[in-house]
Amino acid sequence: MTDTAPKPVTVRPPDAHTPLNRRRLIAPGPVEVEPRVLAELAQPQMHHRAPEGVEKLMQTRAQLSELLGAPGYESVIVTGSGTAAFEGALVSLVPEGAKVVSAQAGKFSERWGEMAQRFGYDTTLVSRPWGEVLDPVEIADATSGAHTLLVTHSETSTGALHDLAAIARMAKANNPDLIVIADCITSYGVAELRPSDWGVDVIVSGSQKGAATPPGLGLLLFSPEVRERLIPNTPRGFYLDMHRELKGQMAGSTPQTPAINLVYALSASLERLLSVPREVLWAEKKRQNDALVAAGTALGARPWASRTTPAVAVLCPPAGIGGKAVAAQLAGMGQRALPGQAPHEDTVFRVSTMGYADRYDALSIAGILEDALEALGAKFERGAGVAAAWAALG
Amino acid sequence: MTDTAPKPVTVRPPDAHTPLNRRRLIAPGPVEVEPRVLAELAQPQMHHRAPEGVEKLMQTRAQLSELLGAPGYESVIVTGSGTAAFEGALVSLVPEGAKVVSAQAGKFSERWGEMAQRFGYDTTLVSRPWGEVLDPVEIADATSGAHTLLVTHSETSTGALHDLAAIARMAKANNPDLIVIADCITSYGVAELRPSDWGVDVIVSGSQKGAATPPGLGLLLFSPEVRERLIPNTPRGFYLDMHRELKGQMAGSTPQTPAINLVYALSASLERLLSVPREVLWAEKKRQNDALVAAGTALGARPWASRTTPAVAVLCPPAGIGGKAVAAQLAGMGQRALPGQAPHEDTVFRVSTMGYADRYDALSIAGILEDALEALGAKFERGAGVAAAWAALG
Repeated sequence: MTDTAPKPVTVRPPDAHTPLNRRRLIAPGPVEVEPRVLAELAQPQMHHRAPEGVEKLMQTRAQLSELLGAPGYESVIVTGSGTAAFEGALVSLVPEGAKVVSAQAGKFSERWGEMAQRFGYDTTLVSRPWGEVLDPVEIADATSGAHTLLVTHSETSTGALHDLAAIARMAKANNPDLIVIADCITSYGVAELRPSDWGVDVIVSGSQKGAATPPGLGLLLFSPEVRERLIPNTPRGFYLDMHRELKGQMAGSTPQTPAINLVYALSASLERLLSVPREVLWAEKKRQNDALVAAGTALGARPWASRTTPAVAVLCPPAGIGGKAVAAQLAGMGQRALPGQAPHEDTVFRVSTMGYADRYDALSIAGILEDALEALGAKFERGAGVAAAWAALG
Repeated sequence: MTDTAPKPVTVRPPDAHTPLNRRRLIAPGPVEVEPRVLAELAQPQMHHRAPEGVEKLMQTRAQLSELLGAPGYESVIVTGSGTAAFEGALVSLVPEGAKVVSAQAGKFSERWGEMAQRFGYDTTLVSRPWGEVLDPVEIADATSGAHTLLVTHSETSTGALHDLAAIARMAKANNPDLIVIADCITSYGVAELRPSDWGVDVIVSGSQKGAATPPGLGLLLFSPEVRERLIPNTPRGFYLDMHRELKGQMAGSTPQTPAINLVYALSASLERLLSVPREVLWAEKKRQNDALVAAGTALGARPWASRTTPAVAVLCPPAGIGGKAVAAQLAGMGQRALPGQAPHEDTVFRVSTMGYADRYDALSIAGILEDALEALGAKFERGAGVAAAWAALG
């Protein structure tokens, strides 16, 4: 075995009571879903062309704009993942051969650069190592002569919350015609996001993150200005032709068959999120994630990124313990979290309260982390993680 | 307003984030139910006379005996509440005019005395004030010449765990022919229970307590000896004729239509409970409830009963705060607990992890109690309840 060989994943045999544990999904998406939302899926099969199906689509689209707090932004619901939604924005807005800047510092932001290259765009990568925060000045400089900037707000692979406000503002100051497409997959409905103030033209997300709905829907929101720039009949996509899709959905119809049950579920989940002002939702999600980070820190772990997203706690485990071992230990306890993403699987573990989870669930997760890290041999004062989380919850 | 007027229920306006809270059922029954168990209810409608319905009934009855740890005890599943099940045992075992002793110290044990009187039995009440523990000697003395003793193991109204082992043994020593019918509604599957060692002839419970299933099924388990004493064609009941019901169910059929969906759900829930040895289940439920009691005590509350049941923490709130106010505050936070029961509604509040809940849920409830009692003006050091609960969880 060489120094670079992966650490073997060793987990302690489960405690005798472990089979009685309640199963929790504490990963950064898919997330826990409210039972009332799941029940929407199981209604007698609805039809998307029936009047009530059309009405539900329009209602859900309006809810998506309301959650964004930007009424002028029109939404499109794509049946697909967040990646499908991002691809729809890219191929429907950027003409052949145009210059695209991809600002990247992690798994997901790197994907958007790879996607732009696949479509043959003149792609400039502004890359930072995983875990670092993107530099708005460096990005703005790179946007000279560019058509579109691809940028990630909350980087789920590293736990960084990039300063989208500064990035978009400085890039637009340098290049007023620039289109900014933002991967807000784990920031929409979770972190402060003010696209019209900041100059973000397209917001991309997915149903299985802050929207707390099962996976299957990609979500897009287009500014009034960018809608004028959508390309009719893009040769780079048919299913993901957002010009046609937006036109159809604004009139209450989807050109293709949507996952209508998921639309009903999404609407029910958005109803809960819209029951409080956005600022309350953002503050609450930040407090919960701060509590996870505080617990981890008290137990000898540390956040990978200096500017942390409220969507997920991405934590480097205490010395001598790998991220895969932590995730495996948690799984053995009935708690589904995630290790890091390739090629950094073992660098971190990731836990989240992004979905249908509250401050008391964050406290539970602190206890879960104490038990898991103790079982893996980490040294700390018993109760430190729980106390730190509860103090952070205020 | 006089001194005896009920305290007005005043709750603090909810925090802004309160609508986002996850809804929890933390009452001492009905309890949280595993989603997998709820999904059993929603299968295509099953038929109790179909071969698979008969098989499910037999499987569930065997699981009930296995959870009791007394293979000789044969079970009956009644479609009804725990009270229906208790009535079935009483009217099917006790002949007209026979002497019945009811040992009582709370809402539920008093109900059994009232039931015996309703049927005209020669009823002796051995009563203690609510919150006190029954005295085995006093009860044994009262059983001279009696046919049957009615006794409650876990008194859900006061939080007392009566010493059923001592009560049954001493009563049987005094009167070897005595039948002991035990209300184990909140002790079956929760507290240590060894009926064949202790001399308890009939165990009565309900689906919505330790069995962690929705309400609707009364559960009975009859010892081999007591089965011989069931009265054929009792004139005190038709639906609740346990002689006929036991005979039918031992052959795989129910004389009346059972809530068959609930039987499927019960079987799925019992499967989880049977995944660990009984002693592990009992220890885990005791640890969870000890944590609730520890949290409450650290926050200025105190348990009403000296010998506490593992099924529910029945806590007298800190001075100046009524049990109804605590329950109302919790409800406003989306957390369904209970105040006391008439006429002691305001004396206590009651919280429980009896159902599908684990040690991390107990920790959550400690946080919930801190927030609720703080909102009601109780004075304590912030974090004391959470720390005490976590320490008790070990």
